[in-house]
Amino acid sequence: MKSYRLCDLSEARIADLCQRNPGSDPSLMRTCQEIFQRVESQGDEAIREYTQRFDGVDLSQFRVSAQELSDATAKVPVRSREALEHAARNIRKFHAAQQVDEKPVQVESGVCCWRENRAIDSVGLYIPGGNAVLPSTVLMLGIPAQLAGCRRVALCVPPRQDCSVAAEVLVAARIAGIEEIFKIGGAQAIAALAIGTETVASVDKILGPGNRWVQAAKLLAILRGVAIDMVAGPTEVLVVADDSARSEWVACDLVSQAEHGVDSRAILVTTSERLLEQVARLVWQLIEDLPLRDLAERSLKESFGLLADSLDGALAFANQYAPEHLILQVKKPEQWTDRVRHAGSVFLGSWSPEVAGDYASGTNHTLPTSGLAKAYSGVSVDTFVKRITFQEITPQGLQGLAPTLETLAEMEGLEGHRRAVQIRRDSQLQRPTAKGS
Amino acid sequence: MKSYRLCDLSEARIADLCQRNPGSDPSLMRTCQEIFQRVESQGDEAIREYTQRFDGVDLSQFRVSAQELSDATAKVPVRSREALEHAARNIRKFHAAQQVDEKPVQVESGVCCWRENRAIDSVGLYIPGGNAVLPSTVLMLGIPAQLAGCRRVALCVPPRQDCSVAAEVLVAARIAGIEEIFKIGGAQAIAALAIGTETVASVDKILGPGNRWVQAAKLLAILRGVAIDMVAGPTEVLVVADDSARSEWVACDLVSQAEHGVDSRAILVTTSERLLEQVARLVWQLIEDLPLRDLAERSLKESFGLLADSLDGALAFANQYAPEHLILQVKKPEQWTDRVRHAGSVFLGSWSPEVAGDYASGTNHTLPTSGLAKAYSGVSVDTFVKRITFQEITPQGLQGLAPTLETLAEMEGLEGHRRAVQIRRDSQLQRPTAKGS
Repeated sequence: MKSYRLCDLSEARIADLCQRNPGSDPSLMRTCQEIFQRVESQGDEAIREYTQRFDGVDLSQFRVSAQELSDATAKVPVRSREALEHAARNIRKFHAAQQVDEKPVQVESGVCCWRENRAIDSVGLYIPGGNAVLPSTVLMLGIPAQLAGCRRVALCVPPRQDCSVAAEVLVAARIAGIEEIFKIGGAQAIAALAIGTETVASVDKILGPGNRWVQAAKLLAILRGVAIDMVAGPTEVLVVADDSARSEWVACDLVSQAEHGVDSRAILVTTSERLLEQVARLVWQLIEDLPLRDLAERSLKESFGLLADSLDGALAFANQYAPEHLILQVKKPEQWTDRVRHAGSVFLGSWSPEVAGDYASGTNHTLPTSGLAKAYSGVSVDTFVKRITFQEITPQGLQGLAPTLETLAEMEGLEGHRRAVQIRRDSQLQRPTAKGS
Repeated sequence: MKSYRLCDLSEARIADLCQRNPGSDPSLMRTCQEIFQRVESQGDEAIREYTQRFDGVDLSQFRVSAQELSDATAKVPVRSREALEHAARNIRKFHAAQQVDEKPVQVESGVCCWRENRAIDSVGLYIPGGNAVLPSTVLMLGIPAQLAGCRRVALCVPPRQDCSVAAEVLVAARIAGIEEIFKIGGAQAIAALAIGTETVASVDKILGPGNRWVQAAKLLAILRGVAIDMVAGPTEVLVVADDSARSEWVACDLVSQAEHGVDSRAILVTTSERLLEQVARLVWQLIEDLPLRDLAERSLKESFGLLADSLDGALAFANQYAPEHLILQVKKPEQWTDRVRHAGSVFLGSWSPEVAGDYASGTNHTLPTSGLAKAYSGVSVDTFVKRITFQEITPQGLQGLAPTLETLAEMEGLEGHRRAVQIRRDSQLQRPTAKGS
């Protein structure tokens, strides 16, 4: 974990520190394109072959059976099930508040416009597997889909070596009401969801984290008219701290980010030279007996700490970085929230560790990475609905709009548009009491 | 305009009628990739060359000058300016209602979570040019951007043969508060906005309609971490009508769609055999003296009418088609709105022609096409903001979450996560009165 003084850095150097690569590797895209083409032409058979090649597993059936689903519950300790239920309860409560009905707007006399939410019919959720067991991500994607009212929720997760899926993942799926679960991973899972095979029907939108292959495949799904949440890169946290912060806690928060993977980023921006020095020392001590020490060590080597002259300067850097997670361990953090312009999710004060949002405070942990927080929101119920506009105009309302509509149609050279208004206007002139046809 | 009986068609044939191609042509993508690479390496010089090659215009300066902007007003008749102002007023009123502040959610004791809206800093709007003069699209994209509070709104529009931009477009830009306007069109405009050149700074999100080149280029922008609204295809309308509808009005609505371009689609689904026959005849009469007759004729040849047994069946087809514009010219249209599941924008009754929403009723006309309405919403203020989640947890709140957080961290094998909670919990045990650090 390198340390810098922010005031010593040139603008170019600062931009460089903020640089991640949210884009995609062309060679990855080409391989994924081949996978898509084979899935399109050969369906399940292509999925079977890729599963053998990439996961080393020979599967006769991809779909998780009702038996596997019902067996899963007994395999998960009660304490774990209760933890998942607790998390689900909070996620449900926070996300349910996002379902807002808007009121109609009387735009002008006789012109009423409004929006209504409609669920996306079918969505595909991707949950990474392999060494990771991520039931929390099942809840984070599955519960908003359920709240939105999606008719069909399909979940893909890579099979383990013994052809199984982790029981915790299946229990989380049950909690989120998901029954359509496939043991398919990687780009071939995204291809199956985007194109459809004999076993997996295609979906309207694909969501979820995953490695570079999965993300490249999601981009190809867009080319085929399937929506995605966003391209997810390595996870990251940026802690803004002043001298009120406890160095051990800050160090713990950075380490908990670093253990996610070698390309995770854990960044500290602080006004306290003491804190910076202590944290930069503590993180190495904290990882010594960490099970995922190797990952954390490599991640921390590429992470950094910055000494800022002021919290203003620290927040300015944070906004330029646009982190996935932003922790404000400062005195009166609520006074700084207005200054946050770009971040996925913000954690206020020392008692709001990122882990709370990762699991159970209720906010979503599927968030924009790699600077995408400048333009993207995290997953929410909004991610699973469309907002359709409606309008109802009265004869009098149309009369009020008609001169403007006809003038604009003329301006744009669209005579057919003008006539669609004129024919109605003329009919009113002929029959001034007309009230609909 | 071919006509079919819905009950005579097989499922496969119906799926075929619904088929548009929302995807993208690989060869277009390759050419766009070259354009991106040249813009990246040569900046303005590449833009200049492409503008010469594709637009046949030799430009020394791309940016519309303050002089050009202020001269534009006088060139536009008062009546036209008033029409633009009227449209802008309504668009502003409807979109302003979309700026909703959500209340914080007390998820459980001591755990408070909420969302706040933040504008996307910089957005790029693309407005097609050439033969088309589309000031309405400037308002439809510019006003929500302004309401959202985007700090920077850059607009690209292809230059005309005399190196100018239509005065109407400049006046609309002024109404929407846009001053940064570039005479750049096509894929090179998208490349400039995505990558940045000496003259055009890059943006966080690119929006707007445009031809297949522009849309392919928008996909490449995603690869570079720049957000887009959606890939826009040819425009389309689907009219659902019963025997209460006036055939002439329905025919006018279809023709006004068809004149947009050869690949526009104008579809009628009706329960009235009489209406279907009359409309199928009338559309050809109506286009006879239409200035854009050739476009409309070719479009109508590929469009179709369907006779449905019931309005239920008609709506089912409409949902499968997921049209950009859906017009319900039926008795009591408000009784059918709940049945609409997939559409961009819906027009209720005979007095709500699509033209109203195209221009001035207040709803947005930048809408999902090609079936994307199954997963995408039209442009709104939402398109220009991110929703950031915040959370503030008290020591007691964290105590309530801690067992769940630690259990889930263990379940996912993330010991560093567990410790970030444990260290805080331990501190509470040591000092039970601690209230923040």
